[in-house]
Amino acid sequence: MSDIGEDDRVRTKTDDVGADVYSEDGSIRSDFITSVAAAIADRDVVFLRQHVARLHESELGDLLEAIAPDQRLALVRLLGKDFDLTALTEVDESIRLEIVDQMSNAQIAEAIGDLDSDDAVYILEDLDQEDREEILAQLPFTERVRLRRALDYPESSAGRRMQTEFVAAPPFWTVGQTIDYLRDEKDLPERFTQIFVIDPTFKLVGVLDLDQILRSKRQVKIETIMRETSYPVPADMDQEEAAQLFEQYDLLSAAVVDENGRLVGVLTIDDVVDVIQEEAEEDIMRLGGVGDEELSDSVLETSRSRVPWLLVNLLTAFLAASVIGLFDATIEQIVALAVLMPIVAGMGGNAASQTMTVTVRALATRNIDIHNAWRIIRRETGVGLLNGVLFGILIGVVAGLWFEDVNIGGIIATAMLINMIAAAIAGIMIPLLLDKVGADPAVASTVFVTTVTDVTGFFSFLGLATWWFAIH
Amino acid sequence: MSDIGEDDRVRTKTDDVGADVYSEDGSIRSDFITSVAAAIADRDVVFLRQHVARLHESELGDLLEAIAPDQRLALVRLLGKDFDLTALTEVDESIRLEIVDQMSNAQIAEAIGDLDSDDAVYILEDLDQEDREEILAQLPFTERVRLRRALDYPESSAGRRMQTEFVAAPPFWTVGQTIDYLRDEKDLPERFTQIFVIDPTFKLVGVLDLDQILRSKRQVKIETIMRETSYPVPADMDQEEAAQLFEQYDLLSAAVVDENGRLVGVLTIDDVVDVIQEEAEEDIMRLGGVGDEELSDSVLETSRSRVPWLLVNLLTAFLAASVIGLFDATIEQIVALAVLMPIVAGMGGNAASQTMTVTVRALATRNIDIHNAWRIIRRETGVGLLNGVLFGILIGVVAGLWFEDVNIGGIIATAMLINMIAAAIAGIMIPLLLDKVGADPAVASTVFVTTVTDVTGFFSFLGLATWWFAIH
Repeated sequence: MSDIGEDDRVRTKTDDVGADVYSEDGSIRSDFITSVAAAIADRDVVFLRQHVARLHESELGDLLEAIAPDQRLALVRLLGKDFDLTALTEVDESIRLEIVDQMSNAQIAEAIGDLDSDDAVYILEDLDQEDREEILAQLPFTERVRLRRALDYPESSAGRRMQTEFVAAPPFWTVGQTIDYLRDEKDLPERFTQIFVIDPTFKLVGVLDLDQILRSKRQVKIETIMRETSYPVPADMDQEEAAQLFEQYDLLSAAVVDENGRLVGVLTIDDVVDVIQEEAEEDIMRLGGVGDEELSDSVLETSRSRVPWLLVNLLTAFLAASVIGLFDATIEQIVALAVLMPIVAGMGGNAASQTMTVTVRALATRNIDIHNAWRIIRRETGVGLLNGVLFGILIGVVAGLWFEDVNIGGIIATAMLINMIAAAIAGIMIPLLLDKVGADPAVASTVFVTTVTDVTGFFSFLGLATWWFAIH
Repeated sequence: MSDIGEDDRVRTKTDDVGADVYSEDGSIRSDFITSVAAAIADRDVVFLRQHVARLHESELGDLLEAIAPDQRLALVRLLGKDFDLTALTEVDESIRLEIVDQMSNAQIAEAIGDLDSDDAVYILEDLDQEDREEILAQLPFTERVRLRRALDYPESSAGRRMQTEFVAAPPFWTVGQTIDYLRDEKDLPERFTQIFVIDPTFKLVGVLDLDQILRSKRQVKIETIMRETSYPVPADMDQEEAAQLFEQYDLLSAAVVDENGRLVGVLTIDDVVDVIQEEAEEDIMRLGGVGDEELSDSVLETSRSRVPWLLVNLLTAFLAASVIGLFDATIEQIVALAVLMPIVAGMGGNAASQTMTVTVRALATRNIDIHNAWRIIRRETGVGLLNGVLFGILIGVVAGLWFEDVNIGGIIATAMLINMIAAAIAGIMIPLLLDKVGADPAVASTVFVTTVTDVTGFFSFLGLATWWFAIH
């Protein structure tokens, strides 16, 4: 995912395809899609080589997503060797698999040889064991060993995301020796921003930013200008944890080391940006009750992935309904209660979702911890109390006037206050507890929290009314 | 926010403070906080200089957030010149202002002189006009001009986030000349990853990655190895748009140019990572009905910021209640309807929030556009239909058995189907329309969508029941 410096991608101002591909709103231009579609239909390989093969991988990815599904494979076939497989790291998983499944293992092996190791791993990890082994078997020895090592690390680990190509030098080299090496060596990574300093056993001893080399005189020894790396990333560290290191210390790249402290790869910021995006995405989706679905999923796939969440919600809805059922005699006498009760439950739900959202995000970004948890719990309870009084009075007045009954006004005001406090406590405590027991607070919080506010809302309102009208 | 290479931050393995500061769960270690607090109380400047002054800016920021509010100022005062003002870019706005407000303008001016321009702007932009001018007046001429230029660009623009320190060279220089310049020049930025190639009028003509320089022989001319920059960022471009460029093309840094194409600064990936975080954060918060609040806000501030959203929801809750009110005669006869109606409305709300979440995120990441919008609308409607049939049958059977009435089962099943389809259509169309008219879909979608599902749910269920029992 990092081949900007590649020669065939260099553009001149008079021949800038990139700027032409997108329309104002950021989508691929319609007329470009039309001409590509026409060229595919006409098997116009010259046009495709000229206008499509030279696109940046992410532009090509967007194009693949924009054209009709049956054109995708045709495009890949027509481009042949000119198709940049890296574009597949930029499309939805279902599109990637659709294309890869139709390519022969020999074709994939040939194309994968040109990729950075992190991109190659990204494509290989989705394939089934057998295909993967067949493809690996066709790669040169060093590459095969490197890719296999990355694939051996657990999914979503730093080892999976790392690039195994890097530049390393021994500590006793001088700046001049290092520059001469870089000038002569033909097999350098396409792009690098750091040089790692290692001992003869590949143990990481330091790191050198390129600007540090450029500032120093030729005779300066590397070990005198290198930094000790305070943040080497263990290969089995979760990618999310590694991303947090990058964010906290503004890293551009970090050495990835195995359990013996030996350098095995480098994790770069561009991959970390993707991880940060994915993690934030995941939280939004989970809070909204959506799993790992993609825009290209079919109706059936989407429906199936959303059913579990709806089922859980159905159960809690029946629970809330059965609470209402306890008071059916009261409702029969005073229908106004049925009219008003969703307001109490709904407002509690809204207040709780505010508190819950703040809590889930604070947990995800590690902004909440033992030092401030109690302060925030106190604050949220205070907010619940304050807004409960405010909205209790407001609703009490409106409902009292609507049904011309001061009793109903007083009852709904009290129930609202109770439910707003319950909402605040549930909104903060449930995510905290889920996090404490090791569950993902974003997944399960919404269900639990709305159950609390529904049940409390209905029970307090209908219960209060039953009690009040029984004694009066 | 990018001074990792600074000499005073270099750490050796035997003296590594960083690894000691955090406990397992990622929060600052309690015993470290206790010793710092004790040192502040004892005015033990030696301890603070030794253990606090040398922390990384983000560690110092976390420490400031973790200690008691009254200790923050004391810590800043005790550290004096050793306090790294950059740490203030890592804390909540309210804490930043609290500290800055207590410092004299002269103190701030002195401290700000040491910062990167982007960090300086970050702190200056929050101050009021008068203080800012007084501080700027005390800075050296070039720095004042640079900071003022950045502050002149609109808030959240690339010009505000850019760093005005950069390295530039003319196209006719050789690699050797460039390296010699870098070795001799004392006033280089602390850290840089690119060299910009400019003409005598400061017009940007190209860019050179440092690895490109290191690979090339001394006599090679810069213009032969530089890349044309396809992605210069106009200074008034919104930071979010700039962030998308970084993401799409995996940029590490980008030239920022004024309206005449002249180089004015450089935008770096570490600032962009913060922008990406903030934008995703914003979407989550807005979907949850929370505004720009911070964890350090007081009860009153928090309560006030959440009231508008609750008020809007209250209005729509009354709207839904008045729909129920239309059918009070029916409910009086059949109380089961009151018990079951929240299920229909609630399930619709859940299904809608799934669709809405997917749509809002797809809009934010530009994954939805004119090419696939219709396909996705069709898909969501299909999912609504499918899940409507599924859950309609499920609820119909359970409700029918519960109240031993096949009519109620049939009515709730039909109402559920109607509401699930309405939920799907509202969940996708409302965010799309809001986006079309230029509103932020994350802010307003939830209210509109749940209004639709509440009203449709109550109206279809109670309306169907009224009609059915009237004709039977």
